[in-house]
Amino acid sequence: MPKISQKGLHMPASPIRKLTPFADKAKADGKKVYHLNIGQPDIETPEGMLNAIKNIDFKVWAYTPSEGTLSYRKKLVEYYNKLGYNITPDNIIVTTGGSEAITIAMMTCLDQGDEVIIPEPFYANYNGFANQTDIVVKPILSYIDNGFALPPIAEFEKVITEKTKAIIICNPNNPTGYLYSREELEALKALCLKYDLYLFSDEAYREFCYDGRTFVSPMHLDGLDDNVVVMDTVSKRYSACGARLGCLITKNKEIISTGLKFAQARLSPGMVEQIAGEAAVDTPDEYFEAVSKEYTERRDTLVNALNQMDGVYCPNPGGAFYVVAKLPIDNADKFCQWMLESFSHDNQTVMMAPATGFYSSPGAGANEVRMAYVLNNNDLSKAMECLAEGLKQYPGRTL
Amino acid sequence: MPKISQKGLHMPASPIRKLTPFADKAKADGKKVYHLNIGQPDIETPEGMLNAIKNIDFKVWAYTPSEGTLSYRKKLVEYYNKLGYNITPDNIIVTTGGSEAITIAMMTCLDQGDEVIIPEPFYANYNGFANQTDIVVKPILSYIDNGFALPPIAEFEKVITEKTKAIIICNPNNPTGYLYSREELEALKALCLKYDLYLFSDEAYREFCYDGRTFVSPMHLDGLDDNVVVMDTVSKRYSACGARLGCLITKNKEIISTGLKFAQARLSPGMVEQIAGEAAVDTPDEYFEAVSKEYTERRDTLVNALNQMDGVYCPNPGGAFYVVAKLPIDNADKFCQWMLESFSHDNQTVMMAPATGFYSSPGAGANEVRMAYVLNNNDLSKAMECLAEGLKQYPGRTL
Ligand SMILES: Cc1ncc(COP(=O)(O)O)c(C=O)c1O
Ligand SMILES: Cc1ncc(COP(=O)(O)O)c(C=O)c1O
Repeated sequence: MPKISQKGLHMPASPIRKLTPFADKAKADGKKVYHLNIGQPDIETPEGMLNAIKNIDFKVWAYTPSEGTLSYRKKLVEYYNKLGYNITPDNIIVTTGGSEAITIAMMTCLDQGDEVIIPEPFYANYNGFANQTDIVVKPILSYIDNGFALPPIAEFEKVITEKTKAIIICNPNNPTGYLYSREELEALKALCLKYDLYLFSDEAYREFCYDGRTFVSPMHLDGLDDNVVVMDTVSKRYSACGARLGCLITKNKEIISTGLKFAQARLSPGMVEQIAGEAAVDTPDEYFEAVSKEYTERRDTLVNALNQMDGVYCPNPGGAFYVVAKLPIDNADKFCQWMLESFSHDNQTVMMAPATGFYSSPGAGANEVRMAYVLNNNDLSKAMECLAEGLKQYPGRTL
Repeated sequence: MPKISQKGLHMPASPIRKLTPFADKAKADGKKVYHLNIGQPDIETPEGMLNAIKNIDFKVWAYTPSEGTLSYRKKLVEYYNKLGYNITPDNIIVTTGGSEAITIAMMTCLDQGDEVIIPEPFYANYNGFANQTDIVVKPILSYIDNGFALPPIAEFEKVITEKTKAIIICNPNNPTGYLYSREELEALKALCLKYDLYLFSDEAYREFCYDGRTFVSPMHLDGLDDNVVVMDTVSKRYSACGARLGCLITKNKEIISTGLKFAQARLSPGMVEQIAGEAAVDTPDEYFEAVSKEYTERRDTLVNALNQMDGVYCPNPGGAFYVVAKLPIDNADKFCQWMLESFSHDNQTVMMAPATGFYSSPGAGANEVRMAYVLNNNDLSKAMECLAEGLKQYPGRTL
């Protein structure tokens, strides 16, 4: 039997799915499991987007141009220019989800052995994509005590080598919910210009900024056009994760022309999705206002409940729909598994993602968990009751 | 400005798109251009598949499992087991087009520097995917004189090294239309077992076999379960190229579990596509009969017209919807460009793909072109008139 690749062997398994067999077992045993482990929102997709699917009227479901249809890219320009990105359709490559935007950006800008700096905890699949493209992730720690703010620039400089080619930020952040300030972005800009680095900006959660905060993108900064690559997706913006529709945006023409060669090899992004994505840009403001109100309430429910538990600390994040909380436990992996395997409260329990999966520094995040507030307030409250009770009973409690 | 990756610089541009600027210019000048260069069929997508899209009734456009929904994989099993593949849903990973099935297979089975043998001419994007995954393509020549039959096994053995991990066949073949016989596949089987190689079978054109020929897959051969990986797509089968829906099939459990890690990193294939793909499996036989009749007629039109031209030779292929023809010309790249740039017949011309883009041995295919018969018979006849006339006038004619 021929041997599987080393790359395949080293490919990290998804940390949010590691505990799925235990959740399945719990459900088979009749327990209700509240899923706070995954980023699949329960929010309805905008009607206009779903109607666009229902109203398709072509006869041949054909390839579109590899960079996406001009019609969709023009519509995207409308959306982005309202945000002040000041782009043209030529600055966009439409991709199969934000995931593909990330891999195309990595392959276009980095070679085998090149290094990318990422503040951790970070979106776990960056590790997978880096393994896939043979590039090296250099993590630098951010800390729960200051809400996971951007680490000091000096920390970045400590890990910069000749191999460093890029920095990835995810803003607002998954898993921490932290929203970077203009000052933090300006500091990154100076760093990127000083060391000639790309700045990859993963903006999957751009629409989710709370308490009147405004979102700032590296696209808003002057003099950084050749360095910035935005990796975007409709997955979270319109609760359309199954559409697999994203895009890569940059004013750097070389990245567009090179990225397009990778896009051409895979032929085309989805056609129906681009039709739906075009309709989505016309989603009324009320949709986003209602969603933002809902998420704000949920966040408050979660953060308040968490901070009332003995020995628990959870910062109040400015964006996205995740929190990372510190728990009085010995080991988050063990605890999350125990909650599914050995615990129930009124025959219910909660599934969380151990934060260890979002760090690549060994040992980091050992007493932290990530929770996504993708359930309604009522279910969230019940999930928090379970957690509070679980923490009291857990044998590895450290308090 | 930071530097683009070497991988990006080495990424081959799509050979079928190289001449697009000349076609655009010809059209801007008012010429009608018959497009025989691309594999986008004009055939209508089955109604049942389009209706499935129109009838969607979910409220949240959600991620599906990374391996595809169980419901779709079960339906696919129905389709494949009718063909005698004898598989279960666990043998399938649903992918974003056949393209993604190819890249997942490559990353799962081959490491940087590992070699894959491919009879040439071959589907040009294998080069791009190989560059992307840092693997090395070892081409071995097949010849127009015997209709591009499988090269003798001795030719494969000549290029086998310690680094050789896999063979790719595309059956029926793009670009040649050649349909491999059971004997040829048995010979490949013996070779793969002798040298412990994977056999990747790209079956994008499985439904397109003519003149009563039957399709044989490596899946039909005994004792090769651990070696065979099928890379499939609905693109051509249902004329649904824009769906971006394919799958990887293998009975090798290690490939499934490792491939799934790559699939998990990119989260999910498209949800609406899987619903449509499920409906597509129920496409009535009459659809395929009508399509097969149409393509057979077109092939005959094309092949007959070609072989009537002085100095032209075109084998009569058993499958797919492409032919490769040998023309009495000095250089196919120059000729195809000249046809767009400097020639017209009744203000019409034809766009073909120079076959050089489908070979990786330097110089091979210099007097060959690939044509896709994706236009109706009438247009095909006119396109052949243009070609006949063009060959008479072309200054680089060798006859
Ligand atoms: C930070 C971040 N980036 C990118 C993605 C990829 O999303 P998709 O491929 O669905 O667009 C996700 C999905 O959860 C994410 O959280
Ligand atoms: C031989 C072959 N394999 C794979 C593909 C990829 O097709 P898709 O990604 O649309 O499924 C094509 C498309 O033309 C092809 O010709």
